[in-house]
Amino acid sequence: MKNFLTILDAESEELEEIINLAAALKKERFTSVRTPLAGKSIALIFEKSSTRTRVSFEVGVKELGGHPLFLSKGDMQLGRGEPIKDTARVLSRYVQGITLRTYEHSRLLELADYSTVPVINALTDTHHPCQIMADVLTFYERFGKFKGVKVAYIGDGNNIAHSWANAAARFGFNLAIASPAECAPSRDILNSAMDEAKKSGGRIEYTTDAKGAASNADVITTDVWASMGQEAEAERKKSFLEPFQVNRALMAIAAPHAIFMHCLPAHIGEEVTEDIFESEASAVFDEAENRLHVQKAIMSKLFL
Amino acid sequence: MKNFLTILDAESEELEEIINLAAALKKERFTSVRTPLAGKSIALIFEKSSTRTRVSFEVGVKELGGHPLFLSKGDMQLGRGEPIKDTARVLSRYVQGITLRTYEHSRLLELADYSTVPVINALTDTHHPCQIMADVLTFYERFGKFKGVKVAYIGDGNNIAHSWANAAARFGFNLAIASPAECAPSRDILNSAMDEAKKSGGRIEYTTDAKGAASNADVITTDVWASMGQEAEAERKKSFLEPFQVNRALMAIAAPHAIFMHCLPAHIGEEVTEDIFESEASAVFDEAENRLHVQKAIMSKLFL
Amino acid sequence: MKNFLTILDAESEELEEIINLAAALKKERFTSVRTPLAGKSIALIFEKSSTRTRVSFEVGVKELGGHPLFLSKGDMQLGRGEPIKDTARVLSRYVQGITLRTYEHSRLLELADYSTVPVINALTDTHHPCQIMADVLTFYERFGKFKGVKVAYIGDGNNIAHSWANAAARFGFNLAIASPAECAPSRDILNSAMDEAKKSGGRIEYTTDAKGAASNADVITTDVWASMGQEAEAERKKSFLEPFQVNRALMAIAAPHAIFMHCLPAHIGEEVTEDIFESEASAVFDEAENRLHVQKAIMSKLFL
Repeated sequence: MKNFLTILDAESEELEEIINLAAALKKERFTSVRTPLAGKSIALIFEKSSTRTRVSFEVGVKELGGHPLFLSKGDMQLGRGEPIKDTARVLSRYVQGITLRTYEHSRLLELADYSTVPVINALTDTHHPCQIMADVLTFYERFGKFKGVKVAYIGDGNNIAHSWANAAARFGFNLAIASPAECAPSRDILNSAMDEAKKSGGRIEYTTDAKGAASNADVITTDVWASMGQEAEAERKKSFLEPFQVNRALMAIAAPHAIFMHCLPAHIGEEVTEDIFESEASAVFDEAENRLHVQKAIMSKLFL
Repeated sequence: MKNFLTILDAESEELEEIINLAAALKKERFTSVRTPLAGKSIALIFEKSSTRTRVSFEVGVKELGGHPLFLSKGDMQLGRGEPIKDTARVLSRYVQGITLRTYEHSRLLELADYSTVPVINALTDTHHPCQIMADVLTFYERFGKFKGVKVAYIGDGNNIAHSWANAAARFGFNLAIASPAECAPSRDILNSAMDEAKKSGGRIEYTTDAKGAASNADVITTDVWASMGQEAEAERKKSFLEPFQVNRALMAIAAPHAIFMHCLPAHIGEEVTEDIFESEASAVFDEAENRLHVQKAIMSKLFL
Repeated sequence: MKNFLTILDAESEELEEIINLAAALKKERFTSVRTPLAGKSIALIFEKSSTRTRVSFEVGVKELGGHPLFLSKGDMQLGRGEPIKDTARVLSRYVQGITLRTYEHSRLLELADYSTVPVINALTDTHHPCQIMADVLTFYERFGKFKGVKVAYIGDGNNIAHSWANAAARFGFNLAIASPAECAPSRDILNSAMDEAKKSGGRIEYTTDAKGAASNADVITTDVWASMGQEAEAERKKSFLEPFQVNRALMAIAAPHAIFMHCLPAHIGEEVTEDIFESEASAVFDEAENRLHVQKAIMSKLFL
């Protein structure tokens, strides 16, 4: 793979290698020193601010021996003042890799088109592949397998839902997405994921029935109902999404050993109740930590 | 000590060790290489912006071999979007230490409560322990002792005054704080410092008489009358504080060898006159430099 | 040279050494490791934001083994809250070098006056010496010489024009600046450059005739008509500058082997047409890359 813009950019074998490398990097974090990024500078462009993504990437680059350049909204206005294609061509002369967190996925695609160095998607409105790779690592640590695991994503049919669909297609696990019809994931993305899933044997299902999706699931996961920059829609979406809250009743339908995941930040009392978020079943902070390890693995593969 | 939130978090012996380590790190700055932070990332969270604190911490982490992550207001909105307790738990997975510069001291306490990595106070509205440790190093360099030194803090009874009281309690020097009754330091903080001072033999006195406080002092120090974010109060406070200006007349009352200190930035013509600020007696730039050395010492002890 | 505030701060021999060192650093970028900045922290102060300058300096410091501290407008308000002279004296205690990108050249001069560490001009309203050093490297790579080369700067008589005049004075090449009378370069700067040019044999000419300037030139270069922060003037200047557009007709007048340079960002369709900007003759991305190499050379000489 040249870039990592969506999970479908990589083949199943590559993705499993990344998960295994991430697990190895996690184990040896404070003992061994692999420095594949020594002497390399990596641009971390954040058009949308984020503590978690920023800190995990910046620490990750550093732990791999490289130099992270954090470029925030104010420092860097892609496409304003300078066309994205020029910025891409200039940055490619200075740095050995780029990560971009932005809004429209098309901005990421244009940056990748004109960059001569590899580009990683650190979140767009349409995909969030690094997050879902961290989530896959998290359930793989608990259950020791990809295939046969059932993941239920309950809530807004957003970028997280899309990247889960792509992950199911490549890793071959079973995914049930439950969203209200008004907040359904993209039909195109689901269809192409379902198509790709034929190779891996993964099953991807979309339903409006949260209980059906949660039934006997190994993983229950959700996301905030309104992401940063979408607060205006929040009230309207809330009315549709209320029946999709992850709470004690919903967790009771899942498998007894089921874990709860959330990419954070969480809006307690909206998409998840406090008791579930703070419960023994909650893997949310392990999941957050896994962002670091999985991103280190992706960068190790890509920023050569 | 687990954290360094106020000077009272450490015992007298620990604090003297920090001062001695800081002096050693200063001497060997460009010759020896101690890298206790090698492989470690330290989050430097600045909810309140500051050149001096930011640069001294960032350079300090770097000189100790670590990786500083500067997280500014815009990058990081503690408690907005995400509860402080979640941010604390997430950051603890990524970094090996946290420094926070913020407004309410309670925000720092909450961060420290939920962090599993050590936390350093890089300024709150109530305490500024790193600054006063640098100040103690500065007078210790000049006078070679803690006990028997008289420090006069003349001016607003703010976080600087509070940390001076704590320092006198632990190092056992004599402190006279002169502030107008309208801008007096916290009675609770003074009382507990006076109580703690019994162990060290330090004397802490609060007065509204600037001349009495300055009499025969070895150190005359002050601070701006309105800190960043408090400019609104400035005019009102100014009328009370005018008689507390550090000027030639006040310095004449101090010991002949007395030094002038100020944590900067200074408002020349308000709390101090230009002739004093720029005089031979002024230790302000040595004091600023000592922020670096003392913070390196604190981090060396804490971020293990 | 103590500082690098304008190209005239260095003698011809020093400047040629910098160009040669930059070429050597470029050749060995990924193979050899010179780390003259090891253990050193360099403050990069940006009162005016810029991706290109910021990334090239930050990567440059890092590649030389040092620690770059990026201080943006928000982090650092030179002269607001604290006089520039105090900031200069404090920073000099923490870092081993300073670069400043600002508006008025007088701010840079004041910072340099009070700093005890070397200062580099990373752009002011009046001079942009690092950019023009990169431009000189770019044409030197193509033509293998300084003297006898004809450079035509066509457009607004701004900081870029001024630094070109200083470069011609020191390197001894021939420079024709063509600007409308309403946007002419500073007469004082031109006169002193012409005076200095006597030593090197460089010829510096100012004209309002774009075609005359471009005639048989080896290098055609221009800049945006309104720089950041000057958008208000833009419309007025546009009417004067339209006849100074670099387009196919103008390039046809230059030497057949002529290259086109632009310091970027470009406003396509204003000062240059897309066909020229994207043509084989365009050296703009090599030129952008050369910022990195030439700044590394300048810092290697200065930040000892």
